[in-house]
Amino acid sequence: MKTSIKLLALLGVVTFFGCEKKEEAPKKPKNVILLISDGTGLSQISSAYFFKNEEPNYSRFENIGFIKTSSSKEDVTDSAAGATAFASGVKTYNGAVGVNSDSISVPTIVELVQDRGVRTGVVATSSIQHATPAAFYGHQVSRRYYEKLSQDLYNSDIDYFAGGGLRFFTKRKDSVDLYKKMEDKGFYMNTEALTNYDQIKDKSKAGFLLAETAMPKMQENRGDFLPKATQLGIDFLNNDKGFFIMVEGSQIDWGGHANDGPYAVAELIDFDNAIGKALDFAKKDGNTLVVVTSDHETGGFTLASTTKKDENGKEYSDYSEVDITFSTGGHSATLIPVFAYGPGAEEFKGIYENNDIFHKIMEVTGWKAKK
Amino acid sequence: MKTSIKLLALLGVVTFFGCEKKEEAPKKPKNVILLISDGTGLSQISSAYFFKNEEPNYSRFENIGFIKTSSSKEDVTDSAAGATAFASGVKTYNGAVGVNSDSISVPTIVELVQDRGVRTGVVATSSIQHATPAAFYGHQVSRRYYEKLSQDLYNSDIDYFAGGGLRFFTKRKDSVDLYKKMEDKGFYMNTEALTNYDQIKDKSKAGFLLAETAMPKMQENRGDFLPKATQLGIDFLNNDKGFFIMVEGSQIDWGGHANDGPYAVAELIDFDNAIGKALDFAKKDGNTLVVVTSDHETGGFTLASTTKKDENGKEYSDYSEVDITFSTGGHSATLIPVFAYGPGAEEFKGIYENNDIFHKIMEVTGWKAKK
Repeated sequence: MKTSIKLLALLGVVTFFGCEKKEEAPKKPKNVILLISDGTGLSQISSAYFFKNEEPNYSRFENIGFIKTSSSKEDVTDSAAGATAFASGVKTYNGAVGVNSDSISVPTIVELVQDRGVRTGVVATSSIQHATPAAFYGHQVSRRYYEKLSQDLYNSDIDYFAGGGLRFFTKRKDSVDLYKKMEDKGFYMNTEALTNYDQIKDKSKAGFLLAETAMPKMQENRGDFLPKATQLGIDFLNNDKGFFIMVEGSQIDWGGHANDGPYAVAELIDFDNAIGKALDFAKKDGNTLVVVTSDHETGGFTLASTTKKDENGKEYSDYSEVDITFSTGGHSATLIPVFAYGPGAEEFKGIYENNDIFHKIMEVTGWKAKK
Repeated sequence: MKTSIKLLALLGVVTFFGCEKKEEAPKKPKNVILLISDGTGLSQISSAYFFKNEEPNYSRFENIGFIKTSSSKEDVTDSAAGATAFASGVKTYNGAVGVNSDSISVPTIVELVQDRGVRTGVVATSSIQHATPAAFYGHQVSRRYYEKLSQDLYNSDIDYFAGGGLRFFTKRKDSVDLYKKMEDKGFYMNTEALTNYDQIKDKSKAGFLLAETAMPKMQENRGDFLPKATQLGIDFLNNDKGFFIMVEGSQIDWGGHANDGPYAVAELIDFDNAIGKALDFAKKDGNTLVVVTSDHETGGFTLASTTKKDENGKEYSDYSEVDITFSTGGHSATLIPVFAYGPGAEEFKGIYENNDIFHKIMEVTGWKAKK
């Protein structure tokens, strides 16, 4: 009898360990890296498959979805409404930064996670007060209030930022030296270059403002700023309680507005390199969710066939080689791809609204406030 | 001792039944419905979200991937090379139907499954000899050989077809009455209209040739031909051994070539209705894989903002409403979305080559020949 009791107990143990795994709660990621390519539709992404010399990092994702990007009032969104949807989970009007359609401030993910000890950062190749990064820390009824948004950055609890926009700290209409105030607040600040991680690892906060307004174009030798700032941010923010970082490839959008194919493609390939840094870390870490998406498409960017002329001067399409064409100088309203990797990634499959990106991140991480 | 042996045995049984499920082989779909929207990129798909009066059927998919569509020789594919990749799993040159880049015939999925008792069909809104449907039953070095492709259709073991292309059966240069030969072969043939399922359920094979060449446009009152032909094909082909049907929305491509937004959108919405029929059946059946994809994008179709003029006659972009613009009269080389539903659908996630669609279908169904 004693033996059979022991075996019954053993049976229970085996049943528990052997079978309970099926019911296991999904693993919650500790860290989130959100990479946003401004003004980037599927065709811009596709350009990496023709113009990058190695397999694009996009190929490393299995879980793919699409977002509908319309703003609260417009079919075609701008970057401010798009970023506010990602950062705060609300649809708002074009031009709004961190405020809802009634112009009321809405809490951003950066603000919502700070009590949990989650460290936060933003990186952009625009000025750091530009609509996309600003929506993660700022609240203004218009994206044009760059100086007010610099003040919002100062007031926020962001731990790391890197991009351009120095002049909105140092050459302000109110004459406040906000740069010095950032240092007084405990920030390691730098206007020259990104440092190595070792140079800032003992600091609590770090800010890099490496251009007066936007960072230079890739074609103007920006070099590896974006992937390097992504890596430095990850290393700097990584801690036991987790981190959230938003990385923007800002200028793909500007290549689209200018209907300049090589400009957009160079910026897209740079962004793909930043994705590589995020995925390399996430793969090693095992506890990091990487989400890659865009606010909207810009330009109607097309990998068209090449138009050539025959012996009689008549134009014909040569399908052997792609050539980039455009159909608009503005944004478009196409569905936008979402790529996800790591714990919780499967939640980003399917077709849903752009503000669901916020809600999905808060849900899978458990950062969502308990009701 | 006897008790403990019994318990040990019981332990084994519980371990086996309780835990082995984790290792369960994935369910193989019995039926496959492959829907191809010719010349349709993500922006054309997106148009359904602005112009369809109800939620598009695309929203019913969770598993999404992308295909790279370049042909064996060209960056930008045509429909013939694209369809041959889907139907036979090989990359070939533009213009080739069911032959590889050395112009050698390659077996199509329709030919490969016939020995298994799997019934097969093709549906299109073009003539049934057009490149996309033809690649599933034909083998010609040029897509232009419509009369030879009609002969290939006659020679094939296809059980069901519906579309246009009557003249390539009845008004042939070789004066053969191929239409009559189809009847002699045992086909129920009809040139007037789709029938109800009850009218053909006792026939072994059925063919509908409802136009001399292409079917009319949606804008010319084609009505519900495509969703109805899809439903009829499913009902007609469904049997114990399974079926494969390819359904093409052929004319989205032609709207793109014509840079005619309303034309393309009307055809896309019609195609979405056909997807709905496939998904309704698959949901009820539980044993059917639905795969939706396209061969390539056409036109650089863009859901742009609306260009308006202010009081001074100056043009400006109104983001409140979308307007369709184009950037090319030809095809483009963008990545193309793949949507999958049913057993095996998760295998269609990620980014891969267009000919992998064939290999994935053959793999998940078990239709692949054993080596």
